[in-house]
Amino acid sequence: MPDTSPTAAMLVIGDEILSGRTRDANMHHLAGELTKHGVTFAEARFVSDNHDSIVAAVRELAARYTTVFTSGGIGPTHDDITADAIAAAFDRSIDVRDDARTILEDHYARTGTQINESRLRMARIPEGASLIDNPISAAPGFTVENVHVMAGVPSIFQAMVASVIPTLAGGPPLLSQSLTIHRGEGDIAGPLRQLAEEFSDLSFGSYPFQRDGAFGSNIVVRGTNGGRLDEAMTRLAALFEQANA
Amino acid sequence: MPDTSPTAAMLVIGDEILSGRTRDANMHHLAGELTKHGVTFAEARFVSDNHDSIVAAVRELAARYTTVFTSGGIGPTHDDITADAIAAAFDRSIDVRDDARTILEDHYARTGTQINESRLRMARIPEGASLIDNPISAAPGFTVENVHVMAGVPSIFQAMVASVIPTLAGGPPLLSQSLTIHRGEGDIAGPLRQLAEEFSDLSFGSYPFQRDGAFGSNIVVRGTNGGRLDEAMTRLAALFEQANA
Repeated sequence: MPDTSPTAAMLVIGDEILSGRTRDANMHHLAGELTKHGVTFAEARFVSDNHDSIVAAVRELAARYTTVFTSGGIGPTHDDITADAIAAAFDRSIDVRDDARTILEDHYARTGTQINESRLRMARIPEGASLIDNPISAAPGFTVENVHVMAGVPSIFQAMVASVIPTLAGGPPLLSQSLTIHRGEGDIAGPLRQLAEEFSDLSFGSYPFQRDGAFGSNIVVRGTNGGRLDEAMTRLAALFEQANA
Repeated sequence: MPDTSPTAAMLVIGDEILSGRTRDANMHHLAGELTKHGVTFAEARFVSDNHDSIVAAVRELAARYTTVFTSGGIGPTHDDITADAIAAAFDRSIDVRDDARTILEDHYARTGTQINESRLRMARIPEGASLIDNPISAAPGFTVENVHVMAGVPSIFQAMVASVIPTLAGGPPLLSQSLTIHRGEGDIAGPLRQLAEEFSDLSFGSYPFQRDGAFGSNIVVRGTNGGRLDEAMTRLAALFEQANA
């Protein structure tokens, strides 16, 4: 499928998921939001809490894709090293910034919480970054060039995504339709390949599954032209109805 | 934490997860198995069904980590391009190989299935690769140098992981203990940092959560020395019992 839509990548930072302790939820959420907005989600990376790994990944992804989202590592604890790594990746200085400090001070005054040195770490913002609103716990995310730096806590991550997505240039939303075929991929691969070649403006994915000991496949057809998608699905259904007969 | 254990990375290949259609299950499974075997899971990447993206990622990960696992893209359909990409990444030729063809022929003879051109694609193996057994649907995975190439269907992926993991050099298993503290990270960050500095042979992770409107944090301490881990957990519990009083 020729693809001229804007691209996005995600960098998930932290040992939590790589150690097998928890499952990621943020990538799946972002994937759905980007697809709705017509942005192609082209790559995701998970790295541990390691300064050099974060810096290298941010540089590579920011250079390769239109937009990058990061998740995790912007809290107050010693293992929250994302903000410093982002500053390093863009050769910018970083320090507690007055606007971010004010946001935190106002929030903690309202909730009767003591601000301390650890909490103040969350006001460390790379030079020239713009802030991303955190309606849940105040500590802001931030944007440096094409990189949006967000919290890892899913409720906060989702709120930040909701405020950033509308600012991105989107493409036409990517539509998809799917058909479940209860036959092994080996039986359907030949005709499917021919159909995919004929409808080269659409993308055809085949996702095999095994259920109750039998193999099947979900065929997902994606594209931005709803009429062509309908046409392809009609052909697809006829193809395997015929082959099943 | 000084870390001399072997490292692993994973490359998940396919549009399925990046489009938001499904959630990944294989990374979480592999993470648990690697941790038990004492291998540090250092990085995971998700890329779409794009030849150049796969080739570039395989080369980078294979050069950087002790072992690489890939998941997805080795079936019979037109979008299964992993085997060719792996061959390209290592500058090896690829063709239908007799040993892999025999495995498929035997399997299909037993199940009364017709072998065809599409199914035969699953016997395309890069030159010099060794095969990985697939006890579920026969089509083998394969290993080229330090890269293990596996199916994306979770049941098959898991079976292949089970046969590869025992062949890897492991480190001492990484032990972990955790403590849930019902206070915001900002309150515990200071003392936690000091404890982490004192127990520099262990790693301390702080994973914040929000539940019923209140913030808390799971503190996870990891290391290979069980005695030191016990000592740190005792100190950690005392620290926040005291702070709570």
